[in-house]
Amino acid sequence: NFTQGVQTVTLIPGDGIGPEISTAVMKIFEAAKAPIQWEERSVTAIKGPSGRWMIPPEAKESMDKSKIGLKGPLKTPIAAGHPSMNLLLRKTFDLYANVRPCASIEGYKTPYDDVNLVTIRENTEGEYSGIEHVIVNGVVQSIKLITEKASKRIAEYAFEYARNNQRISVTAVHKANIMRMSDGLFLRKCREVAENYKDIKFTEMYLDTVCLNMVQDPTQFDVLVMPNLYGDILSDLCAGLIGGLGVTPSGNIGANGVAIFESVHGTAPDIAGKDLANPTALLLSAVMMLRHMGLHGYAKKIEMACFDTIRDKKVLTKDLGGNSKCSEFTNEICRRVQDMD
Amino acid sequence: NFTQGVQTVTLIPGDGIGPEISTAVMKIFEAAKAPIQWEERSVTAIKGPSGRWMIPPEAKESMDKSKIGLKGPLKTPIAAGHPSMNLLLRKTFDLYANVRPCASIEGYKTPYDDVNLVTIRENTEGEYSGIEHVIVNGVVQSIKLITEKASKRIAEYAFEYARNNQRISVTAVHKANIMRMSDGLFLRKCREVAENYKDIKFTEMYLDTVCLNMVQDPTQFDVLVMPNLYGDILSDLCAGLIGGLGVTPSGNIGANGVAIFESVHGTAPDIAGKDLANPTALLLSAVMMLRHMGLHGYAKKIEMACFDTIRDKKVLTKDLGGNSKCSEFTNEICRRVQDMD
Ligand SMILES: CC(C)[C@H](C(=O)O)[C@@H](O)C(=O)O
Ligand SMILES: CC(C)[C@H](C(=O)O)[C@@H](O)C(=O)O
Repeated sequence: NFTQGVQTVTLIPGDGIGPEISTAVMKIFEAAKAPIQWEERSVTAIKGPSGRWMIPPEAKESMDKSKIGLKGPLKTPIAAGHPSMNLLLRKTFDLYANVRPCASIEGYKTPYDDVNLVTIRENTEGEYSGIEHVIVNGVVQSIKLITEKASKRIAEYAFEYARNNQRISVTAVHKANIMRMSDGLFLRKCREVAENYKDIKFTEMYLDTVCLNMVQDPTQFDVLVMPNLYGDILSDLCAGLIGGLGVTPSGNIGANGVAIFESVHGTAPDIAGKDLANPTALLLSAVMMLRHMGLHGYAKKIEMACFDTIRDKKVLTKDLGGNSKCSEFTNEICRRVQDMD
Repeated sequence: NFTQGVQTVTLIPGDGIGPEISTAVMKIFEAAKAPIQWEERSVTAIKGPSGRWMIPPEAKESMDKSKIGLKGPLKTPIAAGHPSMNLLLRKTFDLYANVRPCASIEGYKTPYDDVNLVTIRENTEGEYSGIEHVIVNGVVQSIKLITEKASKRIAEYAFEYARNNQRISVTAVHKANIMRMSDGLFLRKCREVAENYKDIKFTEMYLDTVCLNMVQDPTQFDVLVMPNLYGDILSDLCAGLIGGLGVTPSGNIGANGVAIFESVHGTAPDIAGKDLANPTALLLSAVMMLRHMGLHGYAKKIEMACFDTIRDKKVLTKDLGGNSKCSEFTNEICRRVQDMD
């Protein structure tokens, strides 16, 4: 039961600006008296006995106990053979749903107003299967794997999400005109699941058409559900509509409440350690986390303080158009959080 | 030699609004005295002796002779097993490069100004291989096929295009962090080819990052080259930035000058036959065709007349924000073309 007592959350500060934006989030949580206790862990990959890359046991054990993680950006490994830690985390904890709410932020001007949509990405298979072969010299194939089980699971997640978040419609995004069998299977499962959610409008749309319509009028979309790669693309596109990865939260959700929330921007090594980073994406991810844990009151308070600070335009980090430091922006949010009491 | 005498072009009017926008283009070409003779052909698929779907022989023969086609929209077949005619045409004539210039149109307001980029899409393989299997019940795989030959060919096309069109940079778009072997091969070929074009700046970028950056500031992009599916997505996204498929031209280019130019919007059955359609996309595709044939003077004249008409805002079709008929819009362009003499 998440709603009683102090809960432990595994904190993975990450690389580059990761530690400073993590500190910012912890400060704001403290100001809000959020009943969270942090257990800090590093996830620098280690090689297991079988020769496979794995999450360090201390991080794995912490996550196994806490079930909930908050993660800053991780360096992308360059060495061939070394997997992306982001992918390894999703895999290790079977975090099958990547959820990214994209909503316009008042006071942060972009070419689009009133965006308010959520991309729900299948996070475990598809083009990310990792299965590739050289057939003959100069001919390579990559395998996109779509299963009934994973398609059904993500479709159900999307409809449950829509229902629980007062959303009106779910759009399945696909290229079943081209990948008739794989995207066809995905689409069929979405249609079947839709039958059980008559309260939610179901539509289907080609990925290319979604991209076209998205940049012309994003307000027509609500919840979108799609295979792995399409989600990778669309979630970044949608983040761009509302101001980029610096302000968009993300959650990776698994079974039995297990979840890792993360900012999806980079490690920004050029400004790391200079107190210039913008903690908004990690903070809003932490707000998603609070909601996931049933701590809606704290979520609301922190979110309001963050949005009020941005709308007010007085204390903003550079990337948001201001010239305040990360710590000043953080303190301003803390002040507003405390004022709400 | 395309530049002397009257050239024959195979005209595939297509379905829905196809015939009326084709008529519009023919009228404008006549007004411009473009030295083109049209050979009209239908491409409704027929089943060959081997049971395979094929282009009707009359259309195939015409294209084999003329080498150049102009095509309106085609109905997407619903019957399973029946391939998309668009794909069959690309395949039959090995039209390996899909080229879509996207430039902001003066007077046609969108959230973006000064877009001026070109997507160059590998048109023959990748995710469009058509190879799919059921592994076991509920588990499907689709094969993405990347070859050295096709990757090199499209990379060379992109750099040649950049050089011949006074472009500054080529960006290779990929997900080689995920599809290390297939996108890795594509990327490697782009890098190799780039070595031979020191006059053109070469950059590489993840597809998700391109989408993110594209909606934030499309002016940073110039020529983009990418595998098949990514091109499908990005070309539509970019079309959206400048006003949609109703105003964006497209060309499918093969070896030895063979090419089909086409509008990529739908058949719009709801307004078909009502003199309401907007012929701009097909007209601008025909302008691309004229340039491909070396008929630059005619291309310039027709393009200017079209853009002047749009900028002037007096005679516009409904989708462009006016209330004129297709024929009125067409006549206005004809008038302007004739005035230039
Ligand atoms: C870091 C990278 C492997 C990852 C992906 O491609 O999924 C990222 O782009 C994301 O969207 O989380
Ligand atoms: C019609 C369809 C098969 C086609 C594609 O997916 O390539 C279209 O979207 C395009 O971009 O030309």
